[in-house]
Amino acid sequence: MAWLTATYLIESGPEQIEARAQALAIEQSVECPLEAIHDDDVRENVVARVGSIEPAGDGRFRVAVGIATATIGGETAQLFNMVFGNCSLWENVQLVDLELPPDLLARFGGPRHGIAGIRALLGAPRRPLTAAAMKPQGLPVAELARMCRTFALAGVDIVKDDHGIADQTYSPFAERVRACQAAIGEAVAASGKPAFYAPHLIGTPRILRDHARLARDAGVRVVLVAPMLVGLPAFRDLVDEFPEFVYLAHPSFGGAARLAPPVLFGKIFRLLGADAPIFVNYGGRFAYPPEECAELAAMARAPWGGLRPALPVPAGGMRLDRVDELLSFYGPDTMLLIGGNLLLAEGEALLARAHEFVAKVLVAV
Amino acid sequence: MAWLTATYLIESGPEQIEARAQALAIEQSVECPLEAIHDDDVRENVVARVGSIEPAGDGRFRVAVGIATATIGGETAQLFNMVFGNCSLWENVQLVDLELPPDLLARFGGPRHGIAGIRALLGAPRRPLTAAAMKPQGLPVAELARMCRTFALAGVDIVKDDHGIADQTYSPFAERVRACQAAIGEAVAASGKPAFYAPHLIGTPRILRDHARLARDAGVRVVLVAPMLVGLPAFRDLVDEFPEFVYLAHPSFGGAARLAPPVLFGKIFRLLGADAPIFVNYGGRFAYPPEECAELAAMARAPWGGLRPALPVPAGGMRLDRVDELLSFYGPDTMLLIGGNLLLAEGEALLARAHEFVAKVLVAV
Repeated sequence: MAWLTATYLIESGPEQIEARAQALAIEQSVECPLEAIHDDDVRENVVARVGSIEPAGDGRFRVAVGIATATIGGETAQLFNMVFGNCSLWENVQLVDLELPPDLLARFGGPRHGIAGIRALLGAPRRPLTAAAMKPQGLPVAELARMCRTFALAGVDIVKDDHGIADQTYSPFAERVRACQAAIGEAVAASGKPAFYAPHLIGTPRILRDHARLARDAGVRVVLVAPMLVGLPAFRDLVDEFPEFVYLAHPSFGGAARLAPPVLFGKIFRLLGADAPIFVNYGGRFAYPPEECAELAAMARAPWGGLRPALPVPAGGMRLDRVDELLSFYGPDTMLLIGGNLLLAEGEALLARAHEFVAKVLVAV
Repeated sequence: MAWLTATYLIESGPEQIEARAQALAIEQSVECPLEAIHDDDVRENVVARVGSIEPAGDGRFRVAVGIATATIGGETAQLFNMVFGNCSLWENVQLVDLELPPDLLARFGGPRHGIAGIRALLGAPRRPLTAAAMKPQGLPVAELARMCRTFALAGVDIVKDDHGIADQTYSPFAERVRACQAAIGEAVAASGKPAFYAPHLIGTPRILRDHARLARDAGVRVVLVAPMLVGLPAFRDLVDEFPEFVYLAHPSFGGAARLAPPVLFGKIFRLLGADAPIFVNYGGRFAYPPEECAELAAMARAPWGGLRPALPVPAGGMRLDRVDELLSFYGPDTMLLIGGNLLLAEGEALLARAHEFVAKVLVAV
């Protein structure tokens, strides 16, 4: 069995840190009480393992956790699910490092060009490199192309779209890419110095692919992508399908956790088509206060243009004995999701325990 | 012109809040000094507008900002780019609400089924609904299917995969979906009560589509997806292409901002194939300390298995007069990206100013 190591900075008193670290290891692997695991193979090969715990000052500890690579299998979304899925929702946990065993690392592959490839493209083996951005968005294509030519004539190595420039009516992607690519070609012909235009690829996966093809056909060699905006898995697909591009990665949306939970889960997920957003309930394993949960549920259900109401699904450390309380809190337009707590029983007893859950909910009406 | 309203909670003293709100409006629209905008149409129709500013207690203010919908055009990734792209990286700004004009709202469309559709599917017009999760991951398919049947026999409405269950060798997606779907069908036949199995769809966009087709062909009606893990734009594509599914949205990875910037931008972006990660530089518009920037650049370049080094690109409020300082800080394996500061000049003066930038970098070697 191979293991990767994820390292977290955890705020904790010294007397709680071992228990917190163990709780994180469980949260990030089996996500249920160890007593609910009745399979030796799972205990040995799937449950994550706490490695070192070291004081890091200011009431924090640096905790290394081993996660079985068999739980991931080289897939991008699942990597982040296992490494920082649920514990990203904990108030005082930060992922600070990630080490992968060689085979897993090789499956991701990293940059297809990297420093050496970029330097070769630019014919600049040692000096620092330069880039500039065409902005503001809103300018017509002709002005952007002129700016592009200007920067290249000035000797700038890479001229990129501002990350706010997408596929707007005032500078449509196809027209802009052709014009800016032609402009930079003229500058290079005039100066004799290599320079590259980097258009911004942004959109859903289908749009990304269309735009990437169009850019490739226009002779583009460098592109700008914001991985957190397009989504890390979509970014992976793009790199796999278009390895010929040099990828400039933009940090936009990289701080998205400061999206308040009610608006992210109750409103944005709904906006995009979630029929039933699951969220972490108050009084469970997470720090959300009741007011925030109530606000989230209200946002999910509230009138909002012609959008259908979405069904709130509180979850996360729910227990059978809280069914009455939670239903009186959330009301009947709710789906209760109970995970590990049901699995404290198994076999016939599990049937009975799950039935008890169902019955409690029916009785509460 | 139509405008959406994004509302932010901003930490600030009362004397700075107007300036901070104005800075946010610029950051989220044109991202360059107003003096650098030489086009009246852009000033009037593209620059975001600060609306109300209201005290929200504890040294915070609630700030409403109008963003032109022409900058978005109904595209998912660009929506989040405009609403919370760069300002997500500010230390003390939180997005707390989002209001879209009716036409934009309609283009997203929200839940395809929602509460009423789920209730109709389950034949449960009024009562609270129930869900349970099959876990832990690591169990073989036969045991998961047994658990699924058990929950359905108990009367649980929806039985979902644990969100840790993906497409691992111990419970491959295709085999699992067929087995659990059959198991729940047996339970429904025995009990006469509707119940649904919700498999977890996770992966890059190409995997998502393959798995969604397989699930649909197997008769699945409800699926589990973590939008922040698969990426919000990929989630949008999935909902568009497979509107027949009821989407259970999982919050996993929803707190990803607590990924430390060095590991997210310096290491994870590189892992996925970023040749050159752009990141916000110290002493600019963002709060990153120099130590963190140095660590980020070091991570991007450090030996890491067989991965090529990635080229650090510091950016964000960079100025010409800092070129020497920054190159001595980051060293030559660096691309300096200067945005708005170059655009304080235009026309011939812009050529000269950009040339000055290039020359400064050459001289610094």
